[in-house]
Amino acid sequence: MDPTIGKLGEFGLIALVTARLPQGPEVLLGPGDDAAVIRAGDGRVVATTDLLVEGRHFRRDWSTAYDVGRKAAAQNLADVAAMGAVPTALLVGLAAPATLETPWVFGLADGLRDESSLVGASVAGGDVVSGDAITVSVTALGSLQGRAPVTRSGARPGDVVAVAGRLGWSAAGHALLTAGVTGHPRLVAAHLRPQPPYAAGPQAAGLGATALIDVSDGLLQDLGHVAAASGVAIDLRSPALVGAAADLVAAAEAVGADPLDWVLRGGEDHALAGCFPGGVDLPDAWSVVGSVATGGGTTVDGAAVPGSGGWDHFRTSS
Amino acid sequence: MDPTIGKLGEFGLIALVTARLPQGPEVLLGPGDDAAVIRAGDGRVVATTDLLVEGRHFRRDWSTAYDVGRKAAAQNLADVAAMGAVPTALLVGLAAPATLETPWVFGLADGLRDESSLVGASVAGGDVVSGDAITVSVTALGSLQGRAPVTRSGARPGDVVAVAGRLGWSAAGHALLTAGVTGHPRLVAAHLRPQPPYAAGPQAAGLGATALIDVSDGLLQDLGHVAAASGVAIDLRSPALVGAAADLVAAAEAVGADPLDWVLRGGEDHALAGCFPGGVDLPDAWSVVGSVATGGGTTVDGAAVPGSGGWDHFRTSS
Repeated sequence: MDPTIGKLGEFGLIALVTARLPQGPEVLLGPGDDAAVIRAGDGRVVATTDLLVEGRHFRRDWSTAYDVGRKAAAQNLADVAAMGAVPTALLVGLAAPATLETPWVFGLADGLRDESSLVGASVAGGDVVSGDAITVSVTALGSLQGRAPVTRSGARPGDVVAVAGRLGWSAAGHALLTAGVTGHPRLVAAHLRPQPPYAAGPQAAGLGATALIDVSDGLLQDLGHVAAASGVAIDLRSPALVGAAADLVAAAEAVGADPLDWVLRGGEDHALAGCFPGGVDLPDAWSVVGSVATGGGTTVDGAAVPGSGGWDHFRTSS
Repeated sequence: MDPTIGKLGEFGLIALVTARLPQGPEVLLGPGDDAAVIRAGDGRVVATTDLLVEGRHFRRDWSTAYDVGRKAAAQNLADVAAMGAVPTALLVGLAAPATLETPWVFGLADGLRDESSLVGASVAGGDVVSGDAITVSVTALGSLQGRAPVTRSGARPGDVVAVAGRLGWSAAGHALLTAGVTGHPRLVAAHLRPQPPYAAGPQAAGLGATALIDVSDGLLQDLGHVAAASGVAIDLRSPALVGAAADLVAAAEAVGADPLDWVLRGGEDHALAGCFPGGVDLPDAWSVVGSVATGGGTTVDGAAVPGSGGWDHFRTSS
């Protein structure tokens, strides 16, 4: 039987976990001291943090520890990318009961490590404490490499709205898992282990994106944040959103859902949505899905949509 | 009756909290986007993270929300100081039940803000999610201002060991609260709201400190980390540790404890312990408490002490 983390003890656990975590060139001082020291080459650092709570953000009967690590890293690394930055390091906190078996912690660490390594970042520090519910906090740091950050507030009338990455896949996977419907492994995998288009963030900055956001709470809601921050109206075109998503259409039939609803309101795929000047020549990673005009709010095919709502952490349950 | 955070909703709560958080000059982009952007003037950033769980790290019947905020900030800011750095920003995650009343969250935010402002840092970003237990994650960032980081591994035989800040006060306060003994308000306050000697960190770096650590798990245990990392032996002199602590002696009598035990094994005061070259002229903030020699391990008055143990998050309960 595997030892528990209580039996191993805090310092034994930390030693074994940090041994699994190689440090990249951006980490000047890694785990083992009071704090890490990370390179911030252009004199600025991008920083974002998230909490994941068992039962709310993941279920151990659906997700392996490795999945949780990949997902926890992905959602934070995507926030860094959504500023037009390149991630450099993660700091991770873990609260867990003393009865948790050590392989679960190793799986979590490996998932965090492997997702970070996709973008050249390292897990450079952390904290472990005891708690009844498994809770993972992740802070991601990143470098703008001399570029200006791409915020939510720069969209202008005449811009096009484009998306990189998947929309609605994670929501479809969640619906399939909830309904117990099998036969759609790609959608379930998309829910358990999102694949944000990290490189598209700095790419968008280089293309002159006027606004950029990580789609974590649903496209409608997140573009609503852009519209509000920029003082503009955003209209989406539904054919551009679900035209090619045969996987989603099939899964929606299987569980009696509307695939457009997943695309408009599903979060957790961590796609990037950006606004670009009208004449821009967008590379393949980006699909144009709408346009920016004067006014306010978000519409679909020119019409208001009922319930702009996406995810609110206190109003919905997973 | 005060509204709950569930009734206010995630985005309403975030708007009200961020309105309470002024941003200092080190924050180039504050709350409200996918990530914050913080100045890192010398091309490096110091970063550390901690989790605090209700029932483990604080009790709502002992601590106000404001106390929790002060303490959560203090323990992370002290880690930054222990590298010889000056804190610039905090990122904060909060998991809480939807039934939590909003003034508790405002109190927490105000405490985080006020403790940060002591060192010129700002609460620059965060996350709120729902969870059964109140859990606070804090990440602190800081600037070395061109100095080399002071790690745990540079202590050399012949160095003196000195401490800035309080030792044992928080442990005494915790013991008094646990025993229900009143009449020692300064010690109880020290437990609820530690006062780390932040300025002593960069000061120690300037004085040529060879090693520096935040005393969070107990002086013996934390200096044990320095001894191990540096490959040296550290001997403490007990008269230097409790000589002047009349408060501690009186409280120890009241609860039947040994004041030296609090000083050697109590954490959470977030004193700084440093090693300095033998001939250094230390300012008043620092008290010499021991010396470094060849060998290994930590002794008191030349003798091994039973149980070098301090705090292990999985082996003890608060």
